[in-house]
Amino acid sequence: MAKEKKLVEQITSMDEDFPQWYTDVVTKAGLIDYTSVKGCMVLKPAGYAIWELIQKQLDERFKATGVENVYLPMFIPESLLQKEKDHVEGFAPEVAWVTHGGLNPLQERMCVRPTSETLFCDFYSKEIQSYRDLPKVYNQWCSVVRWEKETRPFLRSREFLWQEGHTAHATADEAEARTIQMLNVYADFCEEVLAMPVIKGRKTDKEKFAGAEATYTIEALMHDGKALQSGTSHNFGDGFAKAFDIQYTDKENKLQYVHQTSWGMTTRLIGAIIMVHGDDSGLVLPPKVAPTQVMIVPIMQKKEGVLEKAEELRTMLAASVRVKLDDSDKNPGFKFAEQEMRGIPLRVEIGPKDIEAGQAVIVRRDTREKTIVSFDELSEKVNEILAGMQDDMFERAKKHRDENTRTATSWEEFTDILENKQGFIKAMWCGTEECETAIKDETGATTRCMPFEQDNLSEVCVHCGKPAKKMVYFGKAY
Amino acid sequence: MAKEKKLVEQITSMDEDFPQWYTDVVTKAGLIDYTSVKGCMVLKPAGYAIWELIQKQLDERFKATGVENVYLPMFIPESLLQKEKDHVEGFAPEVAWVTHGGLNPLQERMCVRPTSETLFCDFYSKEIQSYRDLPKVYNQWCSVVRWEKETRPFLRSREFLWQEGHTAHATADEAEARTIQMLNVYADFCEEVLAMPVIKGRKTDKEKFAGAEATYTIEALMHDGKALQSGTSHNFGDGFAKAFDIQYTDKENKLQYVHQTSWGMTTRLIGAIIMVHGDDSGLVLPPKVAPTQVMIVPIMQKKEGVLEKAEELRTMLAASVRVKLDDSDKNPGFKFAEQEMRGIPLRVEIGPKDIEAGQAVIVRRDTREKTIVSFDELSEKVNEILAGMQDDMFERAKKHRDENTRTATSWEEFTDILENKQGFIKAMWCGTEECETAIKDETGATTRCMPFEQDNLSEVCVHCGKPAKKMVYFGKAY
Repeated sequence: MAKEKKLVEQITSMDEDFPQWYTDVVTKAGLIDYTSVKGCMVLKPAGYAIWELIQKQLDERFKATGVENVYLPMFIPESLLQKEKDHVEGFAPEVAWVTHGGLNPLQERMCVRPTSETLFCDFYSKEIQSYRDLPKVYNQWCSVVRWEKETRPFLRSREFLWQEGHTAHATADEAEARTIQMLNVYADFCEEVLAMPVIKGRKTDKEKFAGAEATYTIEALMHDGKALQSGTSHNFGDGFAKAFDIQYTDKENKLQYVHQTSWGMTTRLIGAIIMVHGDDSGLVLPPKVAPTQVMIVPIMQKKEGVLEKAEELRTMLAASVRVKLDDSDKNPGFKFAEQEMRGIPLRVEIGPKDIEAGQAVIVRRDTREKTIVSFDELSEKVNEILAGMQDDMFERAKKHRDENTRTATSWEEFTDILENKQGFIKAMWCGTEECETAIKDETGATTRCMPFEQDNLSEVCVHCGKPAKKMVYFGKAY
Repeated sequence: MAKEKKLVEQITSMDEDFPQWYTDVVTKAGLIDYTSVKGCMVLKPAGYAIWELIQKQLDERFKATGVENVYLPMFIPESLLQKEKDHVEGFAPEVAWVTHGGLNPLQERMCVRPTSETLFCDFYSKEIQSYRDLPKVYNQWCSVVRWEKETRPFLRSREFLWQEGHTAHATADEAEARTIQMLNVYADFCEEVLAMPVIKGRKTDKEKFAGAEATYTIEALMHDGKALQSGTSHNFGDGFAKAFDIQYTDKENKLQYVHQTSWGMTTRLIGAIIMVHGDDSGLVLPPKVAPTQVMIVPIMQKKEGVLEKAEELRTMLAASVRVKLDDSDKNPGFKFAEQEMRGIPLRVEIGPKDIEAGQAVIVRRDTREKTIVSFDELSEKVNEILAGMQDDMFERAKKHRDENTRTATSWEEFTDILENKQGFIKAMWCGTEECETAIKDETGATTRCMPFEQDNLSEVCVHCGKPAKKMVYFGKAY
């Protein structure tokens, strides 16, 4: 039992040191590796396969709403980046600059895209002439680069994978409707696929995207009580259209500016999965994004007939789930620990005694609950337990989120929650950036969003006591 | 009829000016657009959707052979690029250099990956310790950058999309077997999915990849008689392993170097599809990579019941094929021309008289053949015609390739073919780089490959008359 013990002992407990636990899981579950390029990571097979499942299911949801995929260049000439004032101020300090092509210096330096609003605007300014060319509802899957000082696997790295949708519409109403539509796609995806409840709301002006008129966000709560911004959807109004001269001729033959949106989700979602569902044995993957949903572990596999039966069950299960058989020469205890570390939702144990009894043992990763089931019913039961696990994981995460969402109607309550409990704080706010900044400076908590579902908790701002304008979710965030 | 005429007239005929015809198709079929970044293109929805279908079907074939996907950084520190001598010489002159991160100069400049051998080697040197860690059979889908002077849509651009597989094996035999296995995956994919016949063979030392021991290639013949290298698979032996110190402990506890391979295919394949199958009306897509396989065009669509019936047929066909209904207010002739320009394999025409007769007209894009079929049999017939079209397109391309593959046993024959006919030339070669270079300098034709299927055409080299070593395919190439 020495070896499997070792594998488990290598993880720090999450209550003891959450950041270290996170780093342990990320590396021991084989999701990521560090590279010679500071701040950039390798997405290893186990990590990339989660991203593939996210991509596939999100892309299907996009296409169902009429999104078309495209690919634009990774480089942005400096003059193009500078066309929209707020945007360049937001991004210029953190881009990587290409100055040479081959052996020659470039006439104009280019940055590696930190996001592609400027490129899409340049493209749309040529593509859009008439109302017949609208709407444009394009998306691209790619990587972007932001030269961050501090990096953490999945949560903040100098290069990361994402999708970025960029749309152009005839009217302001249509742009606003698309902005909200995509936020809802994100929220439903997080809840239905990642089993992660989210709060939908609008960012304050201080926290909105560089160049946006309005930024909407979905905010999730991690196991340690910190918030994670999990997806954003921006309405640009006609600001970019004016900066890039994107005009169309309407039905009355008049020139009009288009109204634009953009929206993005990133590999940061994998970090969210880890921090919402993981435990002290490692990763716990929601079945819908588990690259392997079932691991079959044979017991006493050298005994005649065991591996054959295990392989037979694998073939049978493969018709309906993503299943693997661990027939390596490690001992079963080690295999169990490894399957748990990697977050594989179900384990099916099968040994000589089981075969004799015509049954196998199913073990759930999240609850460790064991179910003994006959071979005939195995397939049906596996699918049933996977579906149940997906639902239970969402309910458990929601319970945790709700238990860690507190209301503060006084500044004393507010600081007390942050010092002793963490989590989301719902509180009233006067609407000034002055107060917002003061709260951040004094406590480290930021405005996460002004939720769509507003309560009237009190008449006054939790910080300054002046008349309140909005209920806000506050929290310390990744 | 003015409008649809115009759409067609805008394409140059391929016999008149093939390069211009190509550019016309690429833009008029909506595949690509030029950008403000010189040498970089936008892959528009119609172009990117073809790439998605290529990606999906190629990725399935990869995974069936045990390939796992990963993602490595897009940046390579200069010191890493320089570790393998031949490799850096091959690529350094054409990379883009990043010198600044945010507001600060980098301590060491980095290039944007032109290919990722060096990054994979760096990664493998940490990942691989024991024979238990082998083989590693990883692939990534990404974009790469090569700072080319002359660019052409799909065929040569400064940034392009591709996949790059990188594997590490315990033995030389295993690496060679994987190199050939992936070449075969590529060849089968081109023939079965893209309907494009290819010649499999080995590159000469002069033409092989920078740092490779052997490069294998698949070569296709375009409509104008020029060759296109369509995929390559490289065996590195242990050269990179020695440069990057990638060693493992074998079963006898001895340190051994790994043996490596890499293999790649790119968006250039879309250029190949255009130039193998296209005609003077535009693009012709093989059904397996056609984002829309069937376009339903209603005739007299304002007449009662026409659009309803067309939509009913669309819904019915959608169960088994990728189908769209063109219910825009353009006239049918314009819609026909547009569907032909975009290479959509089948058109289904349906008007009031057809509805009365309970039938529709199916028109094949490649042959223009019309089939009248009753509504009951429409679905079955559409699938049958699509399958037949896929096969016929391959046979037609093969016939063209075979008719344009000629044998030269004298230098006179060789130059005569190049001057008057183009196409592939099979000829014997002495095996020296001197002769290979002389042939290129004198005629512009390069060695495409030494095919696996060798014929003994003559005892002497077609150029120098000295004893021949290999039969080679020569040709002018893109």
